[in-house]
Amino acid sequence: MSKFGKMNESSRESIAATSMKAIEDAGISPGEIDASFYSNAFGVTESQLHIGPLINSAIGIPDKPSLSVESACSSSSAALNEAYAHIAAGLEEICLVAGGEKLSHLGTMSATTYFAMGSDFRYEAANGVTFPGLYASMAVAHMKKFGTTQDMLASVAIKNHDNALKNPLAHLHKKLTREAYMESPVVAYPFHLYDCCPFSDGAAAVVVASEERARKIRDEVVDIAASERAGTTATLQDREDLTSIAGAALAGSRAYKAAHIGPEDIDVAEVHDCFTIAEIMATEDLRFFEKGEGGRAVQDGTTCIGGKLPVNPSGGLKAKGHPVSATGTAQIHELYEQLLGKAGDRQVEGAEIGLAHNVGATGGSCSVHILKRRR
Amino acid sequence: MSKFGKMNESSRESIAATSMKAIEDAGISPGEIDASFYSNAFGVTESQLHIGPLINSAIGIPDKPSLSVESACSSSSAALNEAYAHIAAGLEEICLVAGGEKLSHLGTMSATTYFAMGSDFRYEAANGVTFPGLYASMAVAHMKKFGTTQDMLASVAIKNHDNALKNPLAHLHKKLTREAYMESPVVAYPFHLYDCCPFSDGAAAVVVASEERARKIRDEVVDIAASERAGTTATLQDREDLTSIAGAALAGSRAYKAAHIGPEDIDVAEVHDCFTIAEIMATEDLRFFEKGEGGRAVQDGTTCIGGKLPVNPSGGLKAKGHPVSATGTAQIHELYEQLLGKAGDRQVEGAEIGLAHNVGATGGSCSVHILKRRR
Repeated sequence: MSKFGKMNESSRESIAATSMKAIEDAGISPGEIDASFYSNAFGVTESQLHIGPLINSAIGIPDKPSLSVESACSSSSAALNEAYAHIAAGLEEICLVAGGEKLSHLGTMSATTYFAMGSDFRYEAANGVTFPGLYASMAVAHMKKFGTTQDMLASVAIKNHDNALKNPLAHLHKKLTREAYMESPVVAYPFHLYDCCPFSDGAAAVVVASEERARKIRDEVVDIAASERAGTTATLQDREDLTSIAGAALAGSRAYKAAHIGPEDIDVAEVHDCFTIAEIMATEDLRFFEKGEGGRAVQDGTTCIGGKLPVNPSGGLKAKGHPVSATGTAQIHELYEQLLGKAGDRQVEGAEIGLAHNVGATGGSCSVHILKRRR
Repeated sequence: MSKFGKMNESSRESIAATSMKAIEDAGISPGEIDASFYSNAFGVTESQLHIGPLINSAIGIPDKPSLSVESACSSSSAALNEAYAHIAAGLEEICLVAGGEKLSHLGTMSATTYFAMGSDFRYEAANGVTFPGLYASMAVAHMKKFGTTQDMLASVAIKNHDNALKNPLAHLHKKLTREAYMESPVVAYPFHLYDCCPFSDGAAAVVVASEERARKIRDEVVDIAASERAGTTATLQDREDLTSIAGAALAGSRAYKAAHIGPEDIDVAEVHDCFTIAEIMATEDLRFFEKGEGGRAVQDGTTCIGGKLPVNPSGGLKAKGHPVSATGTAQIHELYEQLLGKAGDRQVEGAEIGLAHNVGATGGSCSVHILKRRR
């Protein structure tokens, strides 16, 4: 994973460089890669689509097949699911999955508009509601139905800022106080500025191999115990319940089933906290907590590093940053480090099973991966 | 497949409508689809990314996973390869693959610029060369090395315009004479206007099922005997030979091997003729003809309907049209009709094995599919 934040490199450069880091870390040569799966959802803002052949050429494997997978903010976890399918089918033995984004050359308004193209533009953005407003609607519904409070939202932000201080690659390295949170401008009620993840540049890459091949390459590996995806209606207006993301709950259920475990077996989770309410909803949709109890769990420290179930030890999208197409693979990067005991100051002690939850838009696309340390 | 040409519908509408046609033709209900793979490479020009949940919602399956696959002009054949992998892995039983594009709302200059984002923008387009110029360079190299003539290029265009006259869904319904070809403006030497495919709107969809499931649904099916992809260097400047597309030749070889057949077994082929030279190169890369003989083969009628090996009976990109993300699935649609004897006036008699060759950009991404009529 690259440093998240503002970078001078183009996406093609950061994805290629980060891919090379992953390849070196995996202990393989680029030529051993059979196929590449890339994500760069907003490449058009850099005048570049069809980024696969560029990256493959840059890393010295122009003859290998590549493609771009787009699924809004869940693009690179969807790409990982594609690599998983190819390997499960026996069509490929080693795949590269990498995502990256550059957003800092866009202003906030322009970036917000491009992001809104991930929603149902005609029915949502064109009528004036962009992602902060959509997630704020979900937050209001959650507050009304379950008594979730502004202080609970603040607790998510404060925890994730604290975690990011322990992550050298995180975008935001800034201790957040409850006072600073409350004093920050309101973006869309109930969201203050600090309820919202930043626009970040960055890239993250993962090398995936068949079990047989992985065993030959190295001892230190992480197993993909489940790779599941599901969807939800594109627009909020079509949903009966705004306090849950049905596709995330469905992908989670399928993932637990595929991995033969339950939510109680998860030691560490990276969840999609594009806004503070999203983390609370995620921890409920994934059945870590009863519905309506997610806010209390963060408030009482259950989800902090050292708590019963650490959530977003990386700092999450909220503070690690959210370079859209890098987010899915960056979550996998964090779990990889956690499960192999390489997470430094933010290490979750004894973590053996991790879960990554990545959401595209307001949940039109949802991915859940469960990773296990090989024993 | 929708009518290609100028359409008033947005991509989301045409892809959804065409998907429903494919679902009905397949004899299934939408709810039987396990996952959807969409392509809409230039969706950003309609302010819409993340089109999967929109289409899935429109056809009544919002809970099913979806994603967008982009691989420039080979997007939807790459999407088909993803569906193929998921089914081969046993992860899914029935998948929907659909691609569509709307380009007519862009002017020619704007469309050319967006297309150029499929090349290596920094090293190619930013220096002034867009696709007509890139393929013209390949044509000049081919003419110089093999003696390919302007008349041979014209023969490709004339044949494909003739074929399109027999295809009610084709974009261009216009008999092309050798005189009209020569009198048309030069776009980039040696290309006249009629060497270049048009900008088209349209959509095409395919339903893919596991063998076991397909047998239960209906008797009339087409087998995917091979689904292979490969790449070539992103830029022309990095290639030793401009007269062949290495990735297409590689994907073709792999496809023949996977299908346990050779080029001599192909009864009908849909190849990527974005420019006339591209069809000639394709027929050589796929080993239908010796290298350098592709031009003569079209000139002497070998590749016309009724010839020894009909190429692009649909009219090809050249005359059927080229709505970028619809092209890969539209080629499959044509083979499906040909192999089931439903191609009407353009039927290739006795066709039992067909090949589809789809190229992204100048060959950075190449897909080859071999389909067989089930006997």
